Amino acid sequence: MQLFYQPHLPEIQHLDLDESKHCIKVLRMKSGDEINLIDGKGTFYKAKITNENHKQCEFEIISTEKEADFNFHRHIAIAPTKNIDRIEWLVEKATEFGIDEISFFQSFHSERKVIKIDRLEKKVISAMKQSIKAKKPIINEIDSLQNIISNAKEANKFIAYVDFQNTTYLKNELKNNRDSIILIGPEGDFTEEEVELSEKKGFKKVSLGKSRLRTETAALAAVHLMNLIAE
Amino acid sequence: MQLFYQPHLPEIQHLDLDESKHCIKVLRMKSGDEINLIDGKGTFYKAKITNENHKQCEFEIISTEKEADFNFHRHIAIAPTKNIDRIEWLVEKATEFGIDEISFFQSFHSERKVIKIDRLEKKVISAMKQSIKAKKPIINEIDSLQNIISNAKEANKFIAYVDFQNTTYLKNELKNNRDSIILIGPEGDFTEEEVELSEKKGFKKVSLGKSRLRTETAALAAVHLMNLIAE
Repeated sequence: MQLFYQPHLPEIQHLDLDESKHCIKVLRMKSGDEINLIDGKGTFYKAKITNENHKQCEFEIISTEKEADFNFHRHIAIAPTKNIDRIEWLVEKATEFGIDEISFFQSFHSERKVIKIDRLEKKVISAMKQSIKAKKPIINEIDSLQNIISNAKEANKFIAYVDFQNTTYLKNELKNNRDSIILIGPEGDFTEEEVELSEKKGFKKVSLGKSRLRTETAALAAVHLMNLIAE
Repeated sequence: MQLFYQPHLPEIQHLDLDESKHCIKVLRMKSGDEINLIDGKGTFYKAKITNENHKQCEFEIISTEKEADFNFHRHIAIAPTKNIDRIEWLVEKATEFGIDEISFFQSFHSERKVIKIDRLEKKVISAMKQSIKAKKPIINEIDSLQNIISNAKEANKFIAYVDFQNTTYLKNELKNNRDSIILIGPEGDFTEEEVELSEKKGFKKVSLGKSRLRTETAALAAVHLMNLIAE
């Protein structure tokens, strides 16, 4: 199913420049044709094209449908990788599985201190359309690990730490209906001080399993687990 | 930890051309230095360089260590995607999580009929080194779906099929210590005839969850689940 994105629905009832071009020039849709839209806030819209303008395609809403709410708020916070492709990939896959909020932080072993949110937003919107989701995950600007830890409001807080002796597995700690945040460290992992700081603020040290995972793979494992818990 | 790959260990005690160059020219290792190797068959080797030749670096084995066996054989069979990057990505991530065998098949809605195994083998070897694994997953040449179905020897056989009414979730069907194969269809999914054929051969229709996943994401979810079951 082809979905169009208009974040200002229902107030604005036309597509933006790129979406208008795609709809009218590429897909050759005409006035009177039906289209499906998402607002990024959790609602699907069915609409009819009223003006096949390839710069500003106008439509009128026929019907709406709310996406079912997820059982809890799913939040991951990651130290971004040096190679930004790996983060873009993660953002796409996390959106497919289902995620509510993605944060980035700088920590002692961080390899990257800058993130271009615009590019990630595009990946997210494309993944939402692909996987037929109406609610756009929140993508936060990069912040210090300390701020992320101090500001976390979730009921269940976890820090994934590579320690093959630790048998406290995230899969056994996540609870349905409990808002959760999971911190995923950089390739050099968290320092002991960072782990201690997070523990003081109520984070629990968890293992993602017996394999040594790259940052983005660990983050995806965490996202997959949060989704499994609620099904 | 830097790992070198020599599939003919312990018989051959030198690195191949690429690995020799990397070891001697890039890492500037010398005779007498210790290196770590894997044979792709499940054994780690510690060795000492005896001849720092950058075309054929020779070494002698000091000690060996067997990698712990996984509880069961983990096999996924996938309809390869049009964009081969997505399959390369999957092969890398599946190796990180842990997988024993990856097969590819042609089915009615397949978008790609050819797979270059050589490139995938390189991805797998690189991922093994990265995630410190000694056993190389088997990567099979592409085959017909019919042959894959008929030849499957695993005790537990699953076909992942997009059907949001189906509440038979893979996560509840996998059993520890039971060799498993999971079929993952192309973007257009399996046809009803293909599902029926697989069911006749003992495959069980399962759901991976409530999200609409791309082929490679579905495959990775299945791989992650197989690993979770045993932990």
